[in-house]
Amino acid sequence: MSTETPRTHIVGAGLIGASVGIGLTAEGWDVTISDNDEHAQTLARSIGAGSKLGSREPDLVIVAVPPSAAPSVVVASLKAWPEAVVTDVASIKEPIAMAVEAAGLGSRYVGSHPMAGREISGGLAAQGDLFKARPWVLCPNGATAEAIALVTQVPNALQCDVVVMDAQQHDAAVARVSHAPQVAASAVAAALGTLSEADVALAGQGLRDVTRIAASEPGMWADIARMNRASLVRTLDHIIGDLEDVRDADDIGNAMTDLIERGRIEVGRIPGKHGGAKRDWVAVTVVVPDAAGQLLRLLTDVAQVGVNVEDITIEHSPRQPVGLTTLYVLPNRAHELSVALGEHGWEIAAS
Amino acid sequence: MSTETPRTHIVGAGLIGASVGIGLTAEGWDVTISDNDEHAQTLARSIGAGSKLGSREPDLVIVAVPPSAAPSVVVASLKAWPEAVVTDVASIKEPIAMAVEAAGLGSRYVGSHPMAGREISGGLAAQGDLFKARPWVLCPNGATAEAIALVTQVPNALQCDVVVMDAQQHDAAVARVSHAPQVAASAVAAALGTLSEADVALAGQGLRDVTRIAASEPGMWADIARMNRASLVRTLDHIIGDLEDVRDADDIGNAMTDLIERGRIEVGRIPGKHGGAKRDWVAVTVVVPDAAGQLLRLLTDVAQVGVNVEDITIEHSPRQPVGLTTLYVLPNRAHELSVALGEHGWEIAAS
Repeated sequence: MSTETPRTHIVGAGLIGASVGIGLTAEGWDVTISDNDEHAQTLARSIGAGSKLGSREPDLVIVAVPPSAAPSVVVASLKAWPEAVVTDVASIKEPIAMAVEAAGLGSRYVGSHPMAGREISGGLAAQGDLFKARPWVLCPNGATAEAIALVTQVPNALQCDVVVMDAQQHDAAVARVSHAPQVAASAVAAALGTLSEADVALAGQGLRDVTRIAASEPGMWADIARMNRASLVRTLDHIIGDLEDVRDADDIGNAMTDLIERGRIEVGRIPGKHGGAKRDWVAVTVVVPDAAGQLLRLLTDVAQVGVNVEDITIEHSPRQPVGLTTLYVLPNRAHELSVALGEHGWEIAAS
Repeated sequence: MSTETPRTHIVGAGLIGASVGIGLTAEGWDVTISDNDEHAQTLARSIGAGSKLGSREPDLVIVAVPPSAAPSVVVASLKAWPEAVVTDVASIKEPIAMAVEAAGLGSRYVGSHPMAGREISGGLAAQGDLFKARPWVLCPNGATAEAIALVTQVPNALQCDVVVMDAQQHDAAVARVSHAPQVAASAVAAALGTLSEADVALAGQGLRDVTRIAASEPGMWADIARMNRASLVRTLDHIIGDLEDVRDADDIGNAMTDLIERGRIEVGRIPGKHGGAKRDWVAVTVVVPDAAGQLLRLLTDVAQVGVNVEDITIEHSPRQPVGLTTLYVLPNRAHELSVALGEHGWEIAAS
């Protein structure tokens, strides 16, 4: 055990708890882990997520239970270990902060929300690198500076991108950047229900993008919706209002143009690279045979030109043995890239 | 002029008309092109999209004007060239079919909808390959077999993926796979308007996917919404109803789970590769330094393992000099790929 890192106990050995345990253990921390589920607890200890808690009180407790259980387990942990600082990893923060405040224990509690990608699910998939390079939100609210410093060591050890904000602000924000978009994507997908297979086959990349998260499993969403109901309802009100304005407009064309214009402004505020506003990358679309190694061959040719690819999307053609690969590059390099790829024998579909 | 390909006249020298002209000319067709706008007409002729129409009547007329003008220009073309077969390229088909039918000229009209990618805009960007490997919908309705065969030569020459359907069915389908998703994506984006920059910075890949098409310019959307109003309103009704069911539910958690479950079923019907249902690809997420050549290095290592990458997404970390690249591969290759990339020194963030 290092003398600098806190003796840490994790309550809950699911994907998040076990992943944090593996990651901190790998950094040399003294980590213990427990779970009401005997099987999950044994598994977590066997994969290096932490050992059994001894008689000494931990310095830091990380509560990693489902969101609906988090308020009570956090309060119980603050009471069970009266010297310890407590954090949790639930994706909604205000109900937990309120429960802690109601118990008068806010000085030792700092809420956490590690924001892992959506494609992650399943309790057996724990990995120490799960949160690396992802945002880790801290909501200190009434915590002391010492408590904040202690909890901050966790995202630092896991090499996360630390973001500090108020719990209420966090919940209002995730309703708009995460929870309501999930509802909207699922509703767009559900509206395909009246279509035949031939109709659905007209889907382009736009629909695939909009509905990608609609493929996710319900998982924790019921808990999340219940705990963030007020902010989610407010956001859905906003979205429904905008959809109704289009549906009910005297001139649906003008209404749609207005909404698209308003949406464009906001999309421009979503950060792209390194926290800067999204750059105006230019798309170069290349026809790529759908065979092993072709994407590599394309990128090898791109590298020869010396153009950096900022983003890439692949669109498979429904009934043809080719796909369209779109490379997003800086505007001043797009023409050069198109010409050079053409010289390398690639067919440019659009640029 | 080939004796097998129709003498073709294109009415309208914007992006679509000029691109079709360049593509057909490149295939050896005898193409003429005209535009009310003198400048556009001169430009199109100078870039090889077609020559000036002579005194001989064309065999085939392709009307490539904005959607709102298409019904009248198609009817006028059928009257001006009484021996010619006429098609058009507007993205809504039923109002045009109805105008043609009302004029009693349906036997010589076949509607077309070439479905180019959303990233394409601007009248100067004409390219013969614009539609290659994309779906080209044909709506023959009351056309003769000869007329259908003649028009089908166009997508075949441009190497498109020909899809035949009824005009009404087409419009109902595109309302759900294209028009309403655009409205929903813009509404999700517009709802970000209340957030600070710090709040918006919590956006993850899910929001980026949902709102990607919300960055597009209004362009033709006003015309499209007006001409497909009935189907668009019906689809928006469906989506609004689902959002209201979540917003107003006694148990918002159950309502959200229900909607997600219904959406998942429909997402599974969106075709992936080669017209088959989307496969259950598995995600392998790799931490990639945000520097030139790193993506190439990664794919070179992937190729050494011999695993085919089915899809790829890149997520830039807001404040760190690394990005997360997610490779989608067949389920039975994911573990092997993770291990091999680890041995090549790559950090696997999640798999």
